[in-house]
Amino acid sequence: MQVQEFKRGELNKISDVPGVLVGHCTIDTTSSKTGVTVVLPAASGVYSSKPVAASFVLNGYGKSTGLIQIDELGTLETPIALTNTLNVGLVHDALVEHAILECEATGFDLKSVNPVVCECNDSYLNDIKLRAVKAEHVFKAIHSASANFAEGDVGAGKGMSCHQLKGGIGSASRLVRLDGRLYTLGVLVLSNHGLLRDLVIQGQAVGEELSRKVGLAARLDFRENPDKGSIIIILASDIPLSDRQLGRVCKRSGIGLARLGSRMGHGSGEIAIAFSTSCPVRVDETADILSVSILNEERMDMVFRASIEAVEEAVLKSMFHASRVKGLDGRVRESLRELLTQDLLSEGFLA
Amino acid sequence: MQVQEFKRGELNKISDVPGVLVGHCTIDTTSSKTGVTVVLPAASGVYSSKPVAASFVLNGYGKSTGLIQIDELGTLETPIALTNTLNVGLVHDALVEHAILECEATGFDLKSVNPVVCECNDSYLNDIKLRAVKAEHVFKAIHSASANFAEGDVGAGKGMSCHQLKGGIGSASRLVRLDGRLYTLGVLVLSNHGLLRDLVIQGQAVGEELSRKVGLAARLDFRENPDKGSIIIILASDIPLSDRQLGRVCKRSGIGLARLGSRMGHGSGEIAIAFSTSCPVRVDETADILSVSILNEERMDMVFRASIEAVEEAVLKSMFHASRVKGLDGRVRESLRELLTQDLLSEGFLA
Amino acid sequence: MQVQEFKRGELNKISDVPGVLVGHCTIDTTSSKTGVTVVLPAASGVYSSKPVAASFVLNGYGKSTGLIQIDELGTLETPIALTNTLNVGLVHDALVEHAILECEATGFDLKSVNPVVCECNDSYLNDIKLRAVKAEHVFKAIHSASANFAEGDVGAGKGMSCHQLKGGIGSASRLVRLDGRLYTLGVLVLSNHGLLRDLVIQGQAVGEELSRKVGLAARLDFRENPDKGSIIIILASDIPLSDRQLGRVCKRSGIGLARLGSRMGHGSGEIAIAFSTSCPVRVDETADILSVSILNEERMDMVFRASIEAVEEAVLKSMFHASRVKGLDGRVRESLRELLTQDLLSEGFLA
Amino acid sequence: MQVQEFKRGELNKISDVPGVLVGHCTIDTTSSKTGVTVVLPAASGVYSSKPVAASFVLNGYGKSTGLIQIDELGTLETPIALTNTLNVGLVHDALVEHAILECEATGFDLKSVNPVVCECNDSYLNDIKLRAVKAEHVFKAIHSASANFAEGDVGAGKGMSCHQLKGGIGSASRLVRLDGRLYTLGVLVLSNHGLLRDLVIQGQAVGEELSRKVGLAARLDFRENPDKGSIIIILASDIPLSDRQLGRVCKRSGIGLARLGSRMGHGSGEIAIAFSTSCPVRVDETADILSVSILNEERMDMVFRASIEAVEEAVLKSMFHASRVKGLDGRVRESLRELLTQDLLSEGFLA
Repeated sequence: MQVQEFKRGELNKISDVPGVLVGHCTIDTTSSKTGVTVVLPAASGVYSSKPVAASFVLNGYGKSTGLIQIDELGTLETPIALTNTLNVGLVHDALVEHAILECEATGFDLKSVNPVVCECNDSYLNDIKLRAVKAEHVFKAIHSASANFAEGDVGAGKGMSCHQLKGGIGSASRLVRLDGRLYTLGVLVLSNHGLLRDLVIQGQAVGEELSRKVGLAARLDFRENPDKGSIIIILASDIPLSDRQLGRVCKRSGIGLARLGSRMGHGSGEIAIAFSTSCPVRVDETADILSVSILNEERMDMVFRASIEAVEEAVLKSMFHASRVKGLDGRVRESLRELLTQDLLSEGFLA
Repeated sequence: MQVQEFKRGELNKISDVPGVLVGHCTIDTTSSKTGVTVVLPAASGVYSSKPVAASFVLNGYGKSTGLIQIDELGTLETPIALTNTLNVGLVHDALVEHAILECEATGFDLKSVNPVVCECNDSYLNDIKLRAVKAEHVFKAIHSASANFAEGDVGAGKGMSCHQLKGGIGSASRLVRLDGRLYTLGVLVLSNHGLLRDLVIQGQAVGEELSRKVGLAARLDFRENPDKGSIIIILASDIPLSDRQLGRVCKRSGIGLARLGSRMGHGSGEIAIAFSTSCPVRVDETADILSVSILNEERMDMVFRASIEAVEEAVLKSMFHASRVKGLDGRVRESLRELLTQDLLSEGFLA
Repeated sequence: MQVQEFKRGELNKISDVPGVLVGHCTIDTTSSKTGVTVVLPAASGVYSSKPVAASFVLNGYGKSTGLIQIDELGTLETPIALTNTLNVGLVHDALVEHAILECEATGFDLKSVNPVVCECNDSYLNDIKLRAVKAEHVFKAIHSASANFAEGDVGAGKGMSCHQLKGGIGSASRLVRLDGRLYTLGVLVLSNHGLLRDLVIQGQAVGEELSRKVGLAARLDFRENPDKGSIIIILASDIPLSDRQLGRVCKRSGIGLARLGSRMGHGSGEIAIAFSTSCPVRVDETADILSVSILNEERMDMVFRASIEAVEEAVLKSMFHASRVKGLDGRVRESLRELLTQDLLSEGFLA
Repeated sequence: MQVQEFKRGELNKISDVPGVLVGHCTIDTTSSKTGVTVVLPAASGVYSSKPVAASFVLNGYGKSTGLIQIDELGTLETPIALTNTLNVGLVHDALVEHAILECEATGFDLKSVNPVVCECNDSYLNDIKLRAVKAEHVFKAIHSASANFAEGDVGAGKGMSCHQLKGGIGSASRLVRLDGRLYTLGVLVLSNHGLLRDLVIQGQAVGEELSRKVGLAARLDFRENPDKGSIIIILASDIPLSDRQLGRVCKRSGIGLARLGSRMGHGSGEIAIAFSTSCPVRVDETADILSVSILNEERMDMVFRASIEAVEEAVLKSMFHASRVKGLDGRVRESLRELLTQDLLSEGFLA
C-alpha cells in the first residue's frame, strides 16, 4: 500500500474545511444522465466576502468560465458550479440569477458578478444536446448543500466516466499541522478522464486486467479511440495561502492524476481551482492597507504533498463510490467497486 | 494629425478581411439599452473549419468565455458573440444551440463546442439584471450578419460608454503588403472603458475640456469614481499568422487604447482575441502532417503597427458613430460627434 | 501640458522609495560605450530579507535572467543589475560572487542565489562583442550606490539609444496617499527602444521634425530598419503590494511607453520588474503562518496611474539627461535636450 | 513491468533524433564534482537556422536563462548548456563567446544571441561556490559532442543527486509513426530532484526499502529536510511540431516525473524545453510568407505518451547509469544500480 503521510479529516471530504459545503442535483431519466454540483466556499456571504483563489489550466481543452478574473484579482465570488459541457451557459445564467437574488436580499444592488462554472463532457451516457440542467436544478443544488454530501454518480457526476469506468464526484481531505494547530486541505473532483488501460491503483497497473474484464482492447488505436474526457479539481483550505501559493498547489494536482496513470490526454479539459477561506476580501472594506496572513513559503511542501494525496484519493473515491450506470443508446459504464477482485480490495487501498 | 502609415481597407471595417461578417441585434426599450453583436470568421463553416486564433488578457476583470481553449489549441470554433456582462450565460447557451443546429444541418453530431462570448458592463444605461438578450436575439444577429454593418450604439454597443461618452461598436481596417500582395487586418471593438478626463485624440488632451462640457469634474476622486468599464478587441486577418504570432498582435492592442489616453483601469475587463482566416484547421483532416503558411517573424512589425492604428481608430469610431443615448434612471451618455468643436473636426481626424 | 496627477518625490527618482539605492559604473573608451547600473532594493540585507516582487514580459525578445524564480516565489533576492546584452553572463557571475561574499561576511553559507540581470543592446555605439563589463565594474557600481544618482548616458545607459536619440538611465517618482500617509512609487528605466519618427512628447508628434533635424527619413522601410532595441523598467514602492498586485503594475508600464509613441516593436526586449519594500520575506523566519500587509485591491487605480506617469517621465528623463555620444565606427546619437527647440522647452514638459 | 507502448530508437538516446548531438565535460577533483553538458540541436548552424522551440516551467525555483525569448519567438538559437546553479553566468558567457566565434567563421557579425543555460544545484557533492566550470569546459563539451554520449555521473551530472541517490544525465527515445513514416522523439534529463522515500520504480514503492539500505529515515521532517533539487528536461523531435504543440509536450513532462514518485517539491527548479528540428527558421529568409509543416492536433496524444515514457525512462537511466560518488566533505550518493536487489533487476525494468 502507498504511503499516506497526512491524516484524513473527519469526513474525508472537502467539507472538512470549515464552512465549505457541497450540494448536488441529479437528473436521471432515460435520456438524461447528468446534473449539477455546487461547491459553496462558505455557508453564506460569498458575494460580500470573497475567498482568495487561484486556478491552473492543466490542459485547456475545456469550457470552464470565470478563471480569467480569478487569475487577475485572486478571488472567487460565487459558488463553483460543475455540470456538463453544453450546459455551461444555462448554469452560468443560473449563478447570475442566484447572485442577484442573494444580493437583493441583503440590500446590495449587484451589477456584475463572475460566475465560475466548470464542466466535463458526459455525452457517452447523457444526451448532452438536451442541456437538461436548468436554473431550478442549480438552485436545488445550492439549497441542498451540506457537509456530508454523496460521492460517485451524483450531481454533475451522474453521467461522467473515469478511466472508462463510472466516475463522477469524489472528495478527500488531509490535515496539516502549522504553528501547532491543525488545518485542513480538502479536494473535490468531477472525474471524467483517462483510459482504462492506463489505470494504476496504488502502484498496481490494474488497467490491462480490468480492460479485459469489461471487454475493452488493452491496446487502443489513438486514431480511433482518443483520450478524451476532462477532470475538474477543486481544492479548498483554511490554511492562509496567497493566490500565488494557491496557484502553486493547483499546478501539483496533475501529479495526483498521474499517480493513477493519467497522461493528461489532448482531448481532456483539466482545470484546477483552489481557494482559501482564511482571509477573504470583504467588499465593504474601507481601509486602504489590509492585514492578511500567508503561509511561510518554506512550508509549501507539506501543502503540496497533502494536496497530491487528496487529489489521488478523491479521484479514486469518485470511481469507488460510483455505481454502474446504463445511459444513452444503452451504453454502460461499469463500477470499479464491483469490478475489483477480492485481491485488490484486501489491499485496503480505500479507507 | 497623426501619422497614418497603412491604407485603410475598402469599408474600413473588420469585414474587409475576406469572409468576415458582423451582425447586430439591438434591444432598445425603456429599461433595456443592450444587445448582441456577432463576428463570424467565415460566412459559414466555422464548426468544421476552424480559424487559427489566440487571445490576450490585458486586464482580467472580465467574464469572457472560451479563451482557455483558444489558448490551448490555437483555434476558434464558433462565431464570437459580444454582449452585456450578465447575459454571458444565455448568449453562451444560444451559441451552443446554434452550433448544434448548424451541425445537424450538415449531418455532424456535435457533442462539444467552445462558445466564445465576450462582454462589457452596460449597467450605466441598461437594466442589466434583466438579461434582456435571449437566444432569438443571438440568432437574429447571426442571420443578419453582413460586411457593411453599423457602428456606434448598436448591437452589444447599445448601452456601452467609452471615456464616459457614448461608446459601443467601432471597426477599422488596414492593408499590409507582403510578398507583393495586399493582405488585410481588421479590428472590431466593443468599447466601454476609460475616463473622459483621460481622453486624448490625435495627441490633443481633449478630456478636460470635454469633461467641462458634459459637467464632469476634471479631477476625479478614485475612491468614489473608479475607472470601471471594459473593452473587447477582436482582430482578424487573412495574413497567415500562427497562434503565437496572433498572440503577439493581441498584446499590442493595449497600445492603441493608450494612444487615446486609457490607463487600463483596475475595474476594466480588457480582452483581445485575434484570428487568421488563412489556414483554418479542418475537422475532417485525415493527414498526420499538415502544411501551413506563417508570416516571417521579421515582418511582424508591419502587422503590429497596422493593428495598433486600427485599434486606435476603431475605438474612436465607436465613439464617433454613437449617438447620444438616454437610458436607465434617465442617465445620459453624450455623443463625441456632437460634442466635438469645429476646431477638432477640421483637423480631419476621422475619415 | 499633460495632466500630472501625482506629486513627485523629493528627488523625483526611484531612490525616493526609502532604502532603494542606485549605483553606476560607466565604461567610456574609444571602443566601449557601456557599463553597468545596479538597483539595490535595500542598503543591505537583500540576501536575508527578500522584497516581494513580480515581473511582466511586455515583449520577450530579450535575455534578462532571474524572472522565472521571481514569478514562482514572488520575491527578489539580489540587487538588479542592468547591462548590455552580451555582458549578461559576466554580470550574472559577478552578482553570484557578490552574494557569496556578502553572505560569508554575515556567516551564512550561501549555496544558491537567483541573480537578476536585465539588458539592452547598445551595439549601435558600443563594441558589444568585447563584453567590457567585468566583475570589478559590478562591484564598483554596488559600492557607489546612492540615492542621488546620475541619469542619462551613465552606467548601463552609456551606449543606449532611445527613439534613435541618446537614451540610457532615467528615473522618476510619485507620491500616493493611502490611509492618510504618503507612500512612494519610483521607477528607473534603461531605455534603448523606439523609432524617432514615432516619438510623441506630451501629445506633440515631434518625431517627424526631429527626424529631419538629425537626418533620418521620416518614413522607414521596416524591412531595412526594424524597430529594434529594448527597455527595462524597474518599479519600486513602499506601498504594501502583493506579488500579484505588483504584476498588475508591471503590466501597465507599457502604457507609459505608448504615451511617448512606442509600438513595442518585434525586436525590442521589453521587461518590467516591480518590488515592494514593505513586507520582505526573511530567510530566518521560523513561524509557519506570517502576517503581511497588502493594498486594498480597489485602490489599485491610484498605483496604476502613478506608475504610468512615472514610467513616461522616467523614459523622457533618460533622453533629456543624456548628452550626445559618439561611439563605435563614429556613429552618433544626438541628445534630445540639445535638439529641443525653445518652443518645446517653454512648454515646461520636464521639471 | 510497465506497459511500453512505443519502440525505442536505436541508441535509446536523444541523439536518435537526426542531427542532435550531446557533449560532456566533467570536472572531477577533490573539491569539484561538476561539469557541463551541451545539447546541440544540429551538428552545425544553430545560429543561422533556428529550431522551433518552447518551454514550460514546472516549478520556477530555478535560474535557467533564455526561456523568455524562446517563449516570445518560438525558436532556439544556441546549444542548450546544462551546468550547476552558480555557474550559469560563466557558462552563459561561454555560449556568447562560442556564438561570436562561430558566426565570425561564417562571416556573420553577431550582435545579439540568446544563450540557453539550465542548471541544477549540485552543492551536496560539489563545492559549488568555486564555479569550477569555465569557458574552456564549455568549448570542450561542444567539440566532443556525439550521438553516443555517456549517461549517469558525467558532465553537468557529475555532482547531481536524484531521489537522494546518485543522479545526473539520462536519456531515452521513442519512435512515433505518422503518415506511414517513423519519427523520433528523444529526451535528455539532468536529474537532481526528489526524495528517496518517494521513489517508485514501475509501480513498486521501493523508496522505503532503499531508504533503509542507505541509512535515511523513511519519514522525513519537511522542516528539516526539504524536497530540494531540480530537474532539467530537454525534449527533441523531428516531428514537425509548432511552438504551441511543443509547449503542450513540455507540460506533460511532469507526468513522467510523477510516475517515479516525484511531488515537484517547493525547492526544486523543474524546467522543460522542447525543440523540433523539422522546420527551422532561417535567418537569411527573404520571403514574407513561409511554408511550414505542423502536426495534426488530433495526433498529439501519441507524442504526449511517447514523451512521458521517454521522460520516465530518461530519469531512471540517469540513476541507473550513475556510479557511487563521494564528494564534498566526504558526502556520498549511492548508485541505484548497485543498490537494486536481484528481485528488482530480474523485473527487467531497464532495457
